[in-house]
Amino acid sequence: MRLSRYFLPILRETPAEAQIVSHRYMLRAGMIKQASAGIYSWLPLGYKVLKKIETIVHEEQQRAGHIPLLMPTIQSADLWRESGRYDAYGDEMLRIKDRQGREMLYGPTNEDMITDIFRSYIRSYKDLPLTLYHIQWKFRDEMRPRFGVMRGREFLMKDGYNFDLTKEDALHAYNRHLVSYLRTYERMGLQAIPMRADSGPIGGDDTHEFLVLADTGESEVFYDSEITDLKFGDREIDYDSVEQCQAVLEEFTSRYARTDETHDEALFNQIPEERRRSARGIEVGQIFYFGTKYSEPMGATVQNAEGAQVPVHMGSHGIGVSRLLGAIIEASHDDKGIIWPEGVTPFHVGIVNLKQGDAEADAACDALHDSFVALGLDPLYDDRDERAGGKFATMDLIGLPWRITVGPRGLKNGVVELTSRRTGESEELPPEDAVKKVAAIYASL
Amino acid sequence: MRLSRYFLPILRETPAEAQIVSHRYMLRAGMIKQASAGIYSWLPLGYKVLKKIETIVHEEQQRAGHIPLLMPTIQSADLWRESGRYDAYGDEMLRIKDRQGREMLYGPTNEDMITDIFRSYIRSYKDLPLTLYHIQWKFRDEMRPRFGVMRGREFLMKDGYNFDLTKEDALHAYNRHLVSYLRTYERMGLQAIPMRADSGPIGGDDTHEFLVLADTGESEVFYDSEITDLKFGDREIDYDSVEQCQAVLEEFTSRYARTDETHDEALFNQIPEERRRSARGIEVGQIFYFGTKYSEPMGATVQNAEGAQVPVHMGSHGIGVSRLLGAIIEASHDDKGIIWPEGVTPFHVGIVNLKQGDAEADAACDALHDSFVALGLDPLYDDRDERAGGKFATMDLIGLPWRITVGPRGLKNGVVELTSRRTGESEELPPEDAVKKVAAIYASL
Repeated sequence: MRLSRYFLPILRETPAEAQIVSHRYMLRAGMIKQASAGIYSWLPLGYKVLKKIETIVHEEQQRAGHIPLLMPTIQSADLWRESGRYDAYGDEMLRIKDRQGREMLYGPTNEDMITDIFRSYIRSYKDLPLTLYHIQWKFRDEMRPRFGVMRGREFLMKDGYNFDLTKEDALHAYNRHLVSYLRTYERMGLQAIPMRADSGPIGGDDTHEFLVLADTGESEVFYDSEITDLKFGDREIDYDSVEQCQAVLEEFTSRYARTDETHDEALFNQIPEERRRSARGIEVGQIFYFGTKYSEPMGATVQNAEGAQVPVHMGSHGIGVSRLLGAIIEASHDDKGIIWPEGVTPFHVGIVNLKQGDAEADAACDALHDSFVALGLDPLYDDRDERAGGKFATMDLIGLPWRITVGPRGLKNGVVELTSRRTGESEELPPEDAVKKVAAIYASL
Repeated sequence: MRLSRYFLPILRETPAEAQIVSHRYMLRAGMIKQASAGIYSWLPLGYKVLKKIETIVHEEQQRAGHIPLLMPTIQSADLWRESGRYDAYGDEMLRIKDRQGREMLYGPTNEDMITDIFRSYIRSYKDLPLTLYHIQWKFRDEMRPRFGVMRGREFLMKDGYNFDLTKEDALHAYNRHLVSYLRTYERMGLQAIPMRADSGPIGGDDTHEFLVLADTGESEVFYDSEITDLKFGDREIDYDSVEQCQAVLEEFTSRYARTDETHDEALFNQIPEERRRSARGIEVGQIFYFGTKYSEPMGATVQNAEGAQVPVHMGSHGIGVSRLLGAIIEASHDDKGIIWPEGVTPFHVGIVNLKQGDAEADAACDALHDSFVALGLDPLYDDRDERAGGKFATMDLIGLPWRITVGPRGLKNGVVELTSRRTGESEELPPEDAVKKVAAIYASL
């Protein structure tokens, strides 16, 4: 993409309403624009990152054997009355009357609707296990929306629902989600720690939240410092294996890690003092096992092997897709701007032409741009007639992990400059080697 | 995908509420489930087709140089008051009050919001031309939702908006959209004819609707039969070329083709009688040029080369993404079920094992399945322990364009059977040749 043909409205000034760094940088980098309180338009750069995150979530869900579908945003109030949640949910639910006077709502979550889908079709234990998920816009009418996409009202979420014959099977689904979430977050360059949490309005006994450590996090968290040494890495896992998934759960949840809602001071104090940590965390996901809480009142039963009708065991599992952009920026930035992890960067590499209009520099930049496109990579070429300083500031702000700087002086020696956004380190090398090096970095992801 | 692990709830009986064939087949093939009147859940098979269509629309929009972003579903009423449309839009607009009593609405279209985005950032003619688009859920509170996804209330639409300095530039954007739409529909296996239409609540003088001919279409259309011989085909086009885009517009719109709203009997009668056609059509897209209708009241101006502030010339351009599933099925089915064009089929090929449990047949099916996956293709392997008749009926109903039938008798002779859903023709060939043949068909798209 040539910047002259793109829509990247960079703001010079820091918007007054933005209290945290991710919100500031998303506004300044032209990623989002507030449409109304807690509701945002995703401008082209923000939309690209949102799609990258969504794609990673889809890939990891499907790798774990979960089946995508898509439920609508607008739901009938009737289903929520049947599950008993309509009156309980409170003012966060956006309630709507349609032109016929029917009571509708903008879904804040989908346990009720997915249970209705399940009971409409599934009759036999032979059709289990089954996990269905979707990535869809939700609405929660927060009293005080703030922090940009971190606590918005209209937000994008992956919510998945498992249906199993027994509690044991459902706990395997729970563990399988935990494993797939670890992989998901690591692909985005995040360390998200599973912590024992409170189940809130979803219900259920077993639940873990995934928290990214950041000073601006809304939750206070307490944990054993050994946890931050754990990495899922590129280990192979068989998601059908009860033992393998259970082992990962144990590895990642056996040490103390809790949010303030479930914090137990006495237990915490049993950790050796030098390993006790308290910090702030951003919640980026949560998994629940809630048994038959929805299947019983809504009649979601199957026939078991003995011919009896039994309610299915369920859980639900969420990833805050749109809020992840904020979480990633909170965890990865400096005073010049965002530093995107390679897995989610909107463009793979930036190309800065130091002397737009110089025939040789223009030709070299065009060639670099076209080489990357031919390799299936997505470069952003700043071809504007601007000063170098302004071009560097834009690249730093929008946070592309790699930048290639092209100027007449370097080209005389046959080189361009390749710079890492994270380390700031640069090296000079021939253009074709710069392309190879960048391509190799992305091929290794 | 192995069918035993998928969620494909086939209905044996034809649902009573479905009046047209696409609605019947989408329900029977387990593609959609009604959530409430005019609002559907997209079950896994339906969701897959929806994503394929969405992907084609994205690719063709970006090929034409249009930039994707994403505006929210919930809008503030204030913007609509500014453009003068809030009171005019009528009961089809779903109006909402949030917990603070603010007037909101579920966007039925986005001219107002995109104009607000534009005016917030763009100051100079140098930033033009610009076309921004998104694919987002819309809501129109139809009095009588019907025909499944063809006339739903919550529906997915691509809507794009061009911003240009002059009327001439905006008409080039109009033509560019027409060209890209022709490509888009052809990739989905559809012939969609641009017809002079009425602009309705969007406003403006120049507008064409794209109609797919089908007996169940909601519009009566009148056209010169020569039009149906036109094909865009695989011609190369430079979307920046005013001349090339204009030539395509002239080629595809110079013959008589109008909906009943703009039909002119006298003009129609000038066509030689043997070429006069009247038929039914399904609207699958519409393009508009409406000049300064929104930019003037909303103050979307730029500085021109002479330093004067001038309102930009705009148009908007829509493709009914979710309704396209219905249109494709209306145009491509038989009495056994859907016949998907290769460009949008949910799975590339079906594999039917005639004797599940037979070691040789199971191994051959597994090998076929894995060969397709290794080639990046997406097979659906019916590995259920069912009678062959039931498996064939399912494959015919869900409409995969190619089916490979594997049985012990054929395997003794080293062959499987490859069957075209469209023609019903079969041929016997070695499994590896069947894979090659199917792969070649998709590689040629």
